[in-house]
Amino acid sequence: MNLLLLDDDDFATATRVSFGGRRAHHVRRILRAAPGDTLSVGRIGGEIGTGTILSLDTDRCILEVRLDTPAPTPLPATLVLALPRPPVLGRVLAATTSFGVKRIVLLHTRRVEKTYWQARALEPAALEEKLRLGLEQARDTLLPEIVIRRRFRAFVEDELPHWLEGKHGVFAHPAASPDPIAGLETPAVVLVGPEGGLLDTEVDPLCQAGMRPISLGPRALRVETAVAALLGRVPSPG
Amino acid sequence: MNLLLLDDDDFATATRVSFGGRRAHHVRRILRAAPGDTLSVGRIGGEIGTGTILSLDTDRCILEVRLDTPAPTPLPATLVLALPRPPVLGRVLAATTSFGVKRIVLLHTRRVEKTYWQARALEPAALEEKLRLGLEQARDTLLPEIVIRRRFRAFVEDELPHWLEGKHGVFAHPAASPDPIAGLETPAVVLVGPEGGLLDTEVDPLCQAGMRPISLGPRALRVETAVAALLGRVPSPG
Repeated sequence: MNLLLLDDDDFATATRVSFGGRRAHHVRRILRAAPGDTLSVGRIGGEIGTGTILSLDTDRCILEVRLDTPAPTPLPATLVLALPRPPVLGRVLAATTSFGVKRIVLLHTRRVEKTYWQARALEPAALEEKLRLGLEQARDTLLPEIVIRRRFRAFVEDELPHWLEGKHGVFAHPAASPDPIAGLETPAVVLVGPEGGLLDTEVDPLCQAGMRPISLGPRALRVETAVAALLGRVPSPG
Repeated sequence: MNLLLLDDDDFATATRVSFGGRRAHHVRRILRAAPGDTLSVGRIGGEIGTGTILSLDTDRCILEVRLDTPAPTPLPATLVLALPRPPVLGRVLAATTSFGVKRIVLLHTRRVEKTYWQARALEPAALEEKLRLGLEQARDTLLPEIVIRRRFRAFVEDELPHWLEGKHGVFAHPAASPDPIAGLETPAVVLVGPEGGLLDTEVDPLCQAGMRPISLGPRALRVETAVAALLGRVPSPG
């Protein structure tokens, strides 16, 4: 946790916050902080800054905060992800958030197991927990939006072409011819398929919608590895 | 598991292999294969090809194999990694192997917790298990070499300059000025520091040894994310 995230409910006054639970425990036990110490803090959806510990006991931490720095500029990229199995989903969501992506589409494809859509990991609270881990890692405050699309064709044929207006879409595809490694053009829409790969009947409509296949080399990478390899090629703004 | 790895001990004749344990279980329970089915196989350190199941019962699988394709060309990169905590180490080793890296240095730095060096994850069998997962993922057969270096200064001052002869060294460093995203020059030596970052007193000798700092953007990434973002920029040969 590189940044302690504060919620609106934590604010007793404009500069005084109070919280318990996982965060208070973290401050005491992991950061081993004490009254008088200063922490990096950020308000969800707002600015980042510092918080000085006024008091700290077993289940409550009170801070005087000063928020004066804008959160980092979002990465100009949307990730479209074939829904992976739950533990992978959690890691990918946190990592994607840590890159600064602000919109993540979870998509059904033929090789996504139907049972994944029933996973507890898809409940809003479970999703938000992973997104917050990514924000805490990246010292960011703006939660990404999660978009669920369970109908591949409807999404790719009806929605995706509009999303791609003025944007550059790529998807990882082992059959693509290798091109020189370079920064992706932005704003980017980046799609990563399922572990088993996309079917030809899925690749065709993606290309027709305006997405370009790119190769990540001759080896098959895990979803989380491919996502990081691709998002690592999106230039940060400014 | 995209490739079933075979060891020399599995070979009863030049084309007949027999194995039990995790792999036999995987063939039956995960791949749900049956006699007559064909699997992708590879011999550790050797070629890849196909194996036809001759018999399969609860704890033994017998294959007739045909190995006729060379393993993919190694990625021209060495990874130098500040030793992370054990679960992260396992994931990074598997992911790094899946990129085709053939030499991985585990390095001590000031912000590596000393207890990590006592972890069971560093025992040879535990390390090899993770490397094999990476090979199975990438359909590769050549195990990476793991090099352990517990003395930072000795490694960076005495060894690294020789390693860098004819190579291009980079390390992830948040203070580096952003440069345009491009493929790294190869052969490459890529260093990723610990979660807490490198100290200035570590950055200086790295630069003196010939390593160049590069930025991965304004956000702090987890070790496993940073490794994939960097290795994703190493061009595959050929």
